[in-house]
Amino acid sequence: MASILEESGFDPHKKLKVVGTSPVKLDGFDKVTGRAKFGADLALPGMLVGKILRSPHPHAILKSIDTSRAEALPGVMAVVTRDDLPDQIQGSGDGDLTRNVMAREKVLYDGHAVAAVAATSESIAKEALKLIRVEYHKLPHVIDPVEAMRPGAPILHEYLRTEGIKGAGDKPTNVVERQEFAMGNIQAGFKQADVVIEREFKTNPIHQGYIEPQACVANYSEAGRVELWCCTQAHFGMRDNLSVILNIPKERICITASELGGAFGGKTIMYAEPVAILLSRKAKRPVRIVLTRSEVFRATGPVSGTHSRIKMGITRSGKFTAAEAEMVFQTGAFTGSMYYNAPQCMFTRYDLQNVKAVAYEVVSNRPKVNAFRAPGVPPVVFGVESVVDELAQAIGMDPIDLRLKNAATEGYVTVYGEALGPIGFVQTLEAAKNTEHYRAPLGPNQGRGVAAGFWWNRAGDTSGRLDIAADGSVHLTLGTIDIAGTRSSISMMAAEELGIPLDRVSAPAIANTDQLSYNRLTAGSRVTFSSGVIVVDAARKAIAEMRRRAAGIWHVSEEDVVYADGFCRVAKPSVGNFMPLSIADIVKQGGPISCESAMVVTGAGPGFGLHIVDVEADKETGAVKIVRYTVVEDAGKAINRRQVEGQYQGGAAQGTGWALNEEYIYGEDGRLQNASFLDYRMPVASDLPMIDTVIVEVPNPKHPYGLRGVGEVPVVPTLAAIANAVTKAIGVRPRELPMSPPRLLKLIEAAGKGKP
Amino acid sequence: MASILEESGFDPHKKLKVVGTSPVKLDGFDKVTGRAKFGADLALPGMLVGKILRSPHPHAILKSIDTSRAEALPGVMAVVTRDDLPDQIQGSGDGDLTRNVMAREKVLYDGHAVAAVAATSESIAKEALKLIRVEYHKLPHVIDPVEAMRPGAPILHEYLRTEGIKGAGDKPTNVVERQEFAMGNIQAGFKQADVVIEREFKTNPIHQGYIEPQACVANYSEAGRVELWCCTQAHFGMRDNLSVILNIPKERICITASELGGAFGGKTIMYAEPVAILLSRKAKRPVRIVLTRSEVFRATGPVSGTHSRIKMGITRSGKFTAAEAEMVFQTGAFTGSMYYNAPQCMFTRYDLQNVKAVAYEVVSNRPKVNAFRAPGVPPVVFGVESVVDELAQAIGMDPIDLRLKNAATEGYVTVYGEALGPIGFVQTLEAAKNTEHYRAPLGPNQGRGVAAGFWWNRAGDTSGRLDIAADGSVHLTLGTIDIAGTRSSISMMAAEELGIPLDRVSAPAIANTDQLSYNRLTAGSRVTFSSGVIVVDAARKAIAEMRRRAAGIWHVSEEDVVYADGFCRVAKPSVGNFMPLSIADIVKQGGPISCESAMVVTGAGPGFGLHIVDVEADKETGAVKIVRYTVVEDAGKAINRRQVEGQYQGGAAQGTGWALNEEYIYGEDGRLQNASFLDYRMPVASDLPMIDTVIVEVPNPKHPYGLRGVGEVPVVPTLAAIANAVTKAIGVRPRELPMSPPRLLKLIEAAGKGKP
Repeated sequence: MASILEESGFDPHKKLKVVGTSPVKLDGFDKVTGRAKFGADLALPGMLVGKILRSPHPHAILKSIDTSRAEALPGVMAVVTRDDLPDQIQGSGDGDLTRNVMAREKVLYDGHAVAAVAATSESIAKEALKLIRVEYHKLPHVIDPVEAMRPGAPILHEYLRTEGIKGAGDKPTNVVERQEFAMGNIQAGFKQADVVIEREFKTNPIHQGYIEPQACVANYSEAGRVELWCCTQAHFGMRDNLSVILNIPKERICITASELGGAFGGKTIMYAEPVAILLSRKAKRPVRIVLTRSEVFRATGPVSGTHSRIKMGITRSGKFTAAEAEMVFQTGAFTGSMYYNAPQCMFTRYDLQNVKAVAYEVVSNRPKVNAFRAPGVPPVVFGVESVVDELAQAIGMDPIDLRLKNAATEGYVTVYGEALGPIGFVQTLEAAKNTEHYRAPLGPNQGRGVAAGFWWNRAGDTSGRLDIAADGSVHLTLGTIDIAGTRSSISMMAAEELGIPLDRVSAPAIANTDQLSYNRLTAGSRVTFSSGVIVVDAARKAIAEMRRRAAGIWHVSEEDVVYADGFCRVAKPSVGNFMPLSIADIVKQGGPISCESAMVVTGAGPGFGLHIVDVEADKETGAVKIVRYTVVEDAGKAINRRQVEGQYQGGAAQGTGWALNEEYIYGEDGRLQNASFLDYRMPVASDLPMIDTVIVEVPNPKHPYGLRGVGEVPVVPTLAAIANAVTKAIGVRPRELPMSPPRLLKLIEAAGKGKP
Repeated sequence: MASILEESGFDPHKKLKVVGTSPVKLDGFDKVTGRAKFGADLALPGMLVGKILRSPHPHAILKSIDTSRAEALPGVMAVVTRDDLPDQIQGSGDGDLTRNVMAREKVLYDGHAVAAVAATSESIAKEALKLIRVEYHKLPHVIDPVEAMRPGAPILHEYLRTEGIKGAGDKPTNVVERQEFAMGNIQAGFKQADVVIEREFKTNPIHQGYIEPQACVANYSEAGRVELWCCTQAHFGMRDNLSVILNIPKERICITASELGGAFGGKTIMYAEPVAILLSRKAKRPVRIVLTRSEVFRATGPVSGTHSRIKMGITRSGKFTAAEAEMVFQTGAFTGSMYYNAPQCMFTRYDLQNVKAVAYEVVSNRPKVNAFRAPGVPPVVFGVESVVDELAQAIGMDPIDLRLKNAATEGYVTVYGEALGPIGFVQTLEAAKNTEHYRAPLGPNQGRGVAAGFWWNRAGDTSGRLDIAADGSVHLTLGTIDIAGTRSSISMMAAEELGIPLDRVSAPAIANTDQLSYNRLTAGSRVTFSSGVIVVDAARKAIAEMRRRAAGIWHVSEEDVVYADGFCRVAKPSVGNFMPLSIADIVKQGGPISCESAMVVTGAGPGFGLHIVDVEADKETGAVKIVRYTVVEDAGKAINRRQVEGQYQGGAAQGTGWALNEEYIYGEDGRLQNASFLDYRMPVASDLPMIDTVIVEVPNPKHPYGLRGVGEVPVVPTLAAIANAVTKAIGVRPRELPMSPPRLLKLIEAAGKGKP
């Protein structure tokens, strides 16, 4: 399996016909009209309704579960509990997987699944849940990760010991892991500084904001084969995990991914799917489970909350000398926060030689967290870019100029040891500085902030197929699920490569797990890049095959056949005088063409962005309004411009909610108090201005068209950019999210009373 | 595209581990418990119910259709008529296709579709049909094909002129086509004969007897893409036909074939599918149409009825000297009876040098016929084998000895010009003669009959894929729909080829039309043979790839690596001392393996069978009971013995219904009178004895395991075998089917009155 195209064949001067335009999404109409088939949209004959019983306690020993009365209820076809899942060693990855699906020794958060029923109707299923008797022995709980690190805090996993943690080896801890990334000499670095600023920051967990709740239909066949339909970003990975925790061979599990009604990282792990499979196996009927909104909030993974301490030093002339950080990531009841991204990405974009970043992942009595755009990075960049803003003020330098002066460029070796290739950070900063927005005057009570962000972008195992049918039409089969219209961008690359109109390429099918070899999940801004590489590779194989066939038809050598714009032609008149052969001509004579490609794709290009935001603050109420917003970011090459703009705008919109309003509110009893979109305040259209975008294009030579992922970076700078703007508007610097009216009002009042 | 494996690699001495056993069908339990997903088993959100309005007249001009009142009915979301289908030239293949889907200028049979509605409920849809006003101008009709050939008969297609038909060129006719196959010298042949017998025979149309009515769900997406789910034997062919009659590019049509609840040839063409698509396009909602049983009888294709005249000559010593036949095939309102199979196959199996067979295909006011096992052949073999039986009596020779004396062998050149390869007719006849059954004594009123049959078996365009996942499990994707458990037999060949247990091969997935290149329909006993060849080819590609990888891992040459029983090993110790690498080892290191194969498969081996049947006749009532039945047939090689036995038994069972009871009864008004399984008498378990089977195995060297198709031959001799047995039992020879009690009683009484 090649790791990347032998040669990306990137050519900055190539005239492109399809790539770089803005066609309408092939599947857009079906998605907006609700006609696309989402997770809850499959129905099978005899299908039952599955419902899950959840713990009302944040932390308790699960003494006993009596399901007899539920089983006796007419219409109940199956009941499952922890006893239906094979045991897995506690503390192992598999042990965590199975315990997050269904509580085993203990319940670890409000909403933790303890049992499930399948019944002929939803009302019967709900009734049956009430008939299940669960005996809990309540334990003290802890919600905040910093408290969870304190000696004497309630311990979630008695077996947990962690190297480098106080008392490790002897006493249990809630710290899952500690990671340190460092280079250069921190002490020396800070000595060179004229100004050193050190601050602490706090962010709260937020919801990814997908509209579609997790939903699945499981059918455990009479032959012991699992057919699963669900909305997921990771159907291959889920198959492998299901195989482990259900002890069913992979080849007996086939997962078909539905369309996704939003995901943003929140659909990368399994929740109800294994439960639905177990219910179907017992009931010998298909089972559908659709989580309620409240279940989504209580029992699926939000984004980590963080505490961070950021310290940076700078010279009068504006050169960073050192950066240090310590941070704590809340991961919920089980590991999985991807916190290790934070220390690696938080400072990366500045030409820093002395860096030290220490990160802790800590469990507490909350649902296991899940991914979100640029997992782990935005909440710590909130701190870093806030400090950078203070440093700019301190030395009286324009904040973009300061970033330009310290911008990393090609060849910079990062704290995680990678020498960066050609990148577009400088060009992005310059483009931002040249926007009309950055020079525009501000009104009363308004403030302007800027902040920068970085994400390395991902690639990895990917496969796909390009078929040319007997009529010359092109069909793509992808192993990566479509989010954000990746189908369209990938089809555009196939059309470009083959030199044919986009409408000759059918909307790519998403393969089920039997149809293609393993594909990494759809996440990390890897899909348009990775599946793009796969499709281009497959298209080139198809072109080679067509040239071979044309050479055969004409009895000339392959070298004498050129392919362009959907036709094979002879290279030069001397070869002979043949009518060009179209794709259709060739397959009509030689039969259909099918080219598969599978690689561990590498070469994703790092992405950089700078956000400019103007806010207006109401000092009476503490309310903040976003009045103007511009996202400037390097896309390498925008395959579908409209979609790239959508990514930029979506990132800023989601980051705005994170910055201003979104948070999970837990009561003293450890129960979630705002488990609905009414009480959990996400931004709506009226909360946002039209978000302007500037697409910078510094090509990634590792991709045939030079693209870089654009799904993650757009959210990274938002929190800090808004905080920096708010600081200007109210004269005080918020260091805790969300910057909700009550919290800002406190700050304003405190400042009034002369407090810091 | 290769036309066949470079080398089938057939080895009669190869020790087989999986092939030749009788594992349980992988999907058997799901099918018998009804959990497999059949045509009517898909439901989509917002799905509407489609219903079709059908003509009550056998022949009428369609003057006008007023749908306004139906459209006004609340709950009706769409109404379609002939006006929604693009026009196609009358008399062209496409013209017939579209007119059979929906009547255009005229209705041509009772049940012909004239309009359709989609509504939110079945009751509303039915109500809406009643509100559609259709103005008919009735025309005289004709049901019987022989009458349809007479001068002055009502003409169905005014444009029809046929070469070689009386009045052709000037007057319209109901004869669609005439075909003649001949070789040698008929007159000379009959001169050499000592005995010449000439008889006329008549058979009636029958139903294929599938349990599942045609059903489909169509979803015309907002982007103009057609998603169709239906029970069909020919999803690729249907896609191409839909593309033509709906004028939608192929690449915008994707058909997923459901499991089949029986088909036997009856699901090879489209009926409601295009209507459902048109309704979905208008309603912008998914539409499901499930035909009622009565619609299946009135408006889908039965098997042709036939009239035939058979003349054969023989010498006293028992050598056939000549054979002549003339036959008329009833094809319903449109061509499509595949009648041309009859003159080619009817005498083929006997070493005849002087043959002449003339066949006519004739339209009449009945639904267009459709395929059934060995299309066109059994009803004419009924005549041939009846005459052969009379000839044996005439010269006082044992009927099997007579057939042995005249049996075709390798090298015989058929009337259709093919020189037969190695065939098993002689071995089949010898095996039959050696059965205990053939020697067993008969009881009072009992008679024994034998008859022989032939089918050439089919192959053609086929493609498929074999994937080896990262865990070493094997996944097959086939382009041919599973009927009769072909999934199992094909998986067995993959397991055999790879030398692994069957349970490492997952139940093959059936590709939708986007996932593989074109596949011919599932019919003609082509699938186990053709997809078998494809899967063996793909498996061999996979083995080559594994050897290549193992050689790379060991740094030896590929020639030094042997593959057997799931492991790569070094060919000889001198090469080095390496641990063998399992399939799983190899894919774990090198990544998954995916091998596709697509060919125009050739080399299907002809099949021959002989049936022995004992009947007992009740001369008072004319009722006939099958008391013993043995099917002897050459399978080449039985891949899955239990399934081959099932094919033999199923053919005999279906033929028994054809012989004794099944017929379509039309009234004077041209309307079908027995459109239900209550009034249409199919045999049930209690009508049949346990049917014995003898599997003869004369390998087909063109297949890696020597197999021949076994789906068609088992029905071919049944009609004649039973007729020959009845003749012995009642002393009179029936020459018309079905041999139902009233008809036999007439024969018996007539014979009593000394009539022939």
